[in-house]
Amino acid sequence: MTGKNFASDNITGVAREIMARLVAENDGACLPYGDDAYTKAVEVAFNKTFETDVSVMLVSTGTAANALALACSCPPYGTVFCHNEAHIEREEGGAVEHLAGGARLVPLAGADAKLDAGSLDAAIRAYLPSAHFFRPAAVSITQATEFGTVYSLAEIRAIADVAHGHDLKLHMDGARFANAVASQDCSAAEMSWKAGVDVLSFGATKNGAMAAESVVFFDRSLLAGAAELRKRAGMLWSKHRFLAVQWDAYLADGLWLRLAKSANDRARALGDALATLQSAELAHPVQANEVFVRLPDAALDRLEADGFEFYRYGGGLIRLVASFATTETDVAALLASLKACLN
Amino acid sequence: MTGKNFASDNITGVAREIMARLVAENDGACLPYGDDAYTKAVEVAFNKTFETDVSVMLVSTGTAANALALACSCPPYGTVFCHNEAHIEREEGGAVEHLAGGARLVPLAGADAKLDAGSLDAAIRAYLPSAHFFRPAAVSITQATEFGTVYSLAEIRAIADVAHGHDLKLHMDGARFANAVASQDCSAAEMSWKAGVDVLSFGATKNGAMAAESVVFFDRSLLAGAAELRKRAGMLWSKHRFLAVQWDAYLADGLWLRLAKSANDRARALGDALATLQSAELAHPVQANEVFVRLPDAALDRLEADGFEFYRYGGGLIRLVASFATTETDVAALLASLKACLN
Amino acid sequence: MTGKNFASDNITGVAREIMARLVAENDGACLPYGDDAYTKAVEVAFNKTFETDVSVMLVSTGTAANALALACSCPPYGTVFCHNEAHIEREEGGAVEHLAGGARLVPLAGADAKLDAGSLDAAIRAYLPSAHFFRPAAVSITQATEFGTVYSLAEIRAIADVAHGHDLKLHMDGARFANAVASQDCSAAEMSWKAGVDVLSFGATKNGAMAAESVVFFDRSLLAGAAELRKRAGMLWSKHRFLAVQWDAYLADGLWLRLAKSANDRARALGDALATLQSAELAHPVQANEVFVRLPDAALDRLEADGFEFYRYGGGLIRLVASFATTETDVAALLASLKACLN
Amino acid sequence: MTGKNFASDNITGVAREIMARLVAENDGACLPYGDDAYTKAVEVAFNKTFETDVSVMLVSTGTAANALALACSCPPYGTVFCHNEAHIEREEGGAVEHLAGGARLVPLAGADAKLDAGSLDAAIRAYLPSAHFFRPAAVSITQATEFGTVYSLAEIRAIADVAHGHDLKLHMDGARFANAVASQDCSAAEMSWKAGVDVLSFGATKNGAMAAESVVFFDRSLLAGAAELRKRAGMLWSKHRFLAVQWDAYLADGLWLRLAKSANDRARALGDALATLQSAELAHPVQANEVFVRLPDAALDRLEADGFEFYRYGGGLIRLVASFATTETDVAALLASLKACLN
Repeated sequence: MTGKNFASDNITGVAREIMARLVAENDGACLPYGDDAYTKAVEVAFNKTFETDVSVMLVSTGTAANALALACSCPPYGTVFCHNEAHIEREEGGAVEHLAGGARLVPLAGADAKLDAGSLDAAIRAYLPSAHFFRPAAVSITQATEFGTVYSLAEIRAIADVAHGHDLKLHMDGARFANAVASQDCSAAEMSWKAGVDVLSFGATKNGAMAAESVVFFDRSLLAGAAELRKRAGMLWSKHRFLAVQWDAYLADGLWLRLAKSANDRARALGDALATLQSAELAHPVQANEVFVRLPDAALDRLEADGFEFYRYGGGLIRLVASFATTETDVAALLASLKACLN
Repeated sequence: MTGKNFASDNITGVAREIMARLVAENDGACLPYGDDAYTKAVEVAFNKTFETDVSVMLVSTGTAANALALACSCPPYGTVFCHNEAHIEREEGGAVEHLAGGARLVPLAGADAKLDAGSLDAAIRAYLPSAHFFRPAAVSITQATEFGTVYSLAEIRAIADVAHGHDLKLHMDGARFANAVASQDCSAAEMSWKAGVDVLSFGATKNGAMAAESVVFFDRSLLAGAAELRKRAGMLWSKHRFLAVQWDAYLADGLWLRLAKSANDRARALGDALATLQSAELAHPVQANEVFVRLPDAALDRLEADGFEFYRYGGGLIRLVASFATTETDVAALLASLKACLN
Repeated sequence: MTGKNFASDNITGVAREIMARLVAENDGACLPYGDDAYTKAVEVAFNKTFETDVSVMLVSTGTAANALALACSCPPYGTVFCHNEAHIEREEGGAVEHLAGGARLVPLAGADAKLDAGSLDAAIRAYLPSAHFFRPAAVSITQATEFGTVYSLAEIRAIADVAHGHDLKLHMDGARFANAVASQDCSAAEMSWKAGVDVLSFGATKNGAMAAESVVFFDRSLLAGAAELRKRAGMLWSKHRFLAVQWDAYLADGLWLRLAKSANDRARALGDALATLQSAELAHPVQANEVFVRLPDAALDRLEADGFEFYRYGGGLIRLVASFATTETDVAALLASLKACLN
Repeated sequence: MTGKNFASDNITGVAREIMARLVAENDGACLPYGDDAYTKAVEVAFNKTFETDVSVMLVSTGTAANALALACSCPPYGTVFCHNEAHIEREEGGAVEHLAGGARLVPLAGADAKLDAGSLDAAIRAYLPSAHFFRPAAVSITQATEFGTVYSLAEIRAIADVAHGHDLKLHMDGARFANAVASQDCSAAEMSWKAGVDVLSFGATKNGAMAAESVVFFDRSLLAGAAELRKRAGMLWSKHRFLAVQWDAYLADGLWLRLAKSANDRARALGDALATLQSAELAHPVQANEVFVRLPDAALDRLEADGFEFYRYGGGLIRLVASFATTETDVAALLASLKACLN
């Protein structure tokens, strides 16, 4: 349980199944830098999860994964089109710009933190004249989005078609990919390469791992230089088995989807309950594990005084995040406290 | 025990004291990105260890630590003087060059992988004329070195005096700092800032942690931009407590020195035994946890056939590394097998 | 005369006074890389022009000047706030991002291609929270602007106050600085450092030189590393005298202002004449040497068929640029042809 | 004439044939950035000079040319093998490292500033193990070399074979390419692509131009991104015709070879005369337009007192450079003065 903390899904510890595997696989010696049996095994697990042969690089942060995926997709003089709420644009300190050697992000507007295929097409066209001398190279979408919404498979496909029509690669920032897959009741393959995604940042940290992110390459042409970039960016673990083991536990027996479904269920329950309150207004549809809601400031003050934690953006808007570790009791306690505050 | 694997000290798992703390501190919620009580506590532990107020940044790889430390010490148009066997020069894929925005390493020769203060001074002077338009900025030494030797405190001080005399910063790559301190029977403070070190890459991974390195800033002027660089390089963990906890366990009750002393003892025993063999020749003094020795190729072939693992450089030269997990039994088994091979 | 070509002011050759000096100073030997008497002399000329001691770096393109000025003002993890029509944002291929090592431009809206002090202040504040990990570092304004308008001294001062209030540097892209000074009938000093500008890209190429731009540093703290950056960017001429001579001729006897005034006069005459035409609509005030006007597409087609050249943006909007070489006859011919087209 | 200045070949002005063309082509308007008839014409001249279809980029400095050529030949994680006396290694402020995004130069020893094919092969092999994570990408040789020597066609071919055998590109820094071609009495084609050169920095500045260098791409695969890099590095002139005109005059009617031959003849005369002096010792063969000679320090002091200028390296070693503008009278005066000094 996460108690009164709804600030994020990274306020959690490690899912017990994953921690148990870390402990269990601690004995014995194995070669460093990924040249070990655990890493070989987890590559098979990725192939099975995505129903195709993929290339995978394991790293420890989402920022590292996004920067690596996009530096492999975009030359130094290229542009990456993304939403203006995208994590790569707002929260990652210029990691993409840095690792890609001076590339540029082009932030675009769009409802519910989602890119729209038509607007994207127009934006790329506006960048195409050679006088700009920046070369459009990639599109990045976040799934689930920064506002807790989820692209449908058709929406992803439409964006992929625009990107590929201009010879751009499509990257998906899947820090909450598990929540999105659980939300759409589809397969990992359907939400990624089958919908046109070329490279995926697939996260485990927010959903139960200690520090385990990955870059999944569906388009092998993007691999040129990937190993060198990972090394020079300082992302390559020496005791690599401990990254591999986290992923192996995460992907085994559908754990990743069970954990995500639990988080989504908690968020939906929270959203449904809030929707019945006259003084609450949902800012975005609740489609994954995040709830954005507007409430009276007085009520928010009292919630905070009660010890609840959440991001507060001003104007009464807050974010409540449910994680794999959030319990029904946690949600019920928040709702009870909130109702008391509103009276 | 590490059995027959003497390839490196990163072939090990996690020391049980550290793993136990990771499990113990897994419950409950805490804020991400270092804004948690564990991180606050570990900063106190660093201050205590170094007997002064330091600034610390925790990262997950030694390459990340070195790149961050040196990018904070060297402008894009600066040079870093180092030994030509330095890990940053030979094994880190240009991480310093990259994070520092195009800086240059200047590799220098020196016996036993150690820089010599006099040669260093001459090399810096050769770079000073403005026509080069590269600005000497930093010196980096490795302690213990890549050949398992250790700088004395006086040697470090002499190098620091040269560096500071030219207004350069002194960085120490302390991936095996614990082994060096244990070897010299001095304090962490004496081997770092008291000897003139401005910034230290202090490693725990090789000596018992899962993935825990740090940059310890003694010269606070180097901190400008450090937080931004760490973030943009993708080095900042979201569940930062799990980096802090590894460090807290490592520094508590002298665990770091006990583990290092054990590794050093195993290496010294190995070295002492090898020194008695007529057909063995030690390539460098054994001063930390690594043994470089030349043996007949036929014997090495048979050792490998027996299942022993080690780096083999050609010409009969090999490296044998002892770690915190290497047991007396492991060493005895290697020596027994070797003696059999030599007969 | 530039005949029928109104596409830009860089379609011109070299002003005869400047070419004559290049020929005159061609004899004899002098040391390279700026260590010559011509370079010393031109530094005095800059000091006199700006009525204060400045540091100057001469380069050959406006993109080089802007990149150098801003790389000296902004760390790799910094942001530069500019107008979304700024040349550095739209036409320079990411030169600032590249030379500054991965910095970010933050484009802002504003009427007539001018930043507004209030909007700028709000934009900087939105970037200040540390979670972004990008550090606001500089503001860049273009004078005269990309739409041919000119900031008043009061407007520059207001922007400088905002920038300095947040500890940001103020850069002015003065590719058409001469046209702006001529337009406002003020001094170079008043339009630059006296109004709060810290570093100026001062151009001569568009206004009569062959290839001569400069970076004028009023804030000497920005000079750290400037010489190294100029060299490593490949901007430092070996036969540096030929850059210095162009500038010396340009600044001598007010040539730069005479040439700019002529261009401005031609543009104003063009603008005034167009304003009297019922089917023409000026898109922006004509304050320097550029005219943005909307005309019927049929008339534009016929103008082009008549051999006139200009940028055409769609929707009838075109740009007509007058230069130092544009004659009254050139303008009269365009107007005559246009009137014929409109009938 | 260059009088008493033998410091370099860039202490000269502009050859009168080139200056005359600049003046002659100054009138009229033409489109900027290379979209003009002069640029089209000069591309034909390059094709003719090299007897094949080449792609050319014109820039204003040799550092810019080398950086652009090598950034197109080497990824950010690649290495460029060069001589340890190479201009890119010693005199260009890290331009290659910067434009290539953090690449590394690997300097090698070799007599007379020349790489040796065998040593090069060994050096590349030493870099190939993956543990380094730097990828060997290019070889750069200087022709004529920094010590005034010249590679034979056979030597270039041997180096090209080594480079290509490892899948590396071969770059030639031809700041003094004209002097080398004149020296070998071969064609430009024979000394470049026919000998295996993939990309050439072809200079004109030292040999008579004002500021005119070029990158000549024989291997078209290197062009990907070249235009964008040139623009973002600030190397693209707006009044591009004035770069094209310099080159057109330089290549027309063999002017480039006539100028180079004159410089070489002066240097050879100087070298021959020095060889007859008992107290002089030539440090390298005189094969182009530079003479490296050791003389008694007392004589050098008196030469300087007489007003002669040259680089002085210590230990009596000096460099005397002849240029297109050096006359027989200039040489005779130096020799006369020297002989007087030696008595």
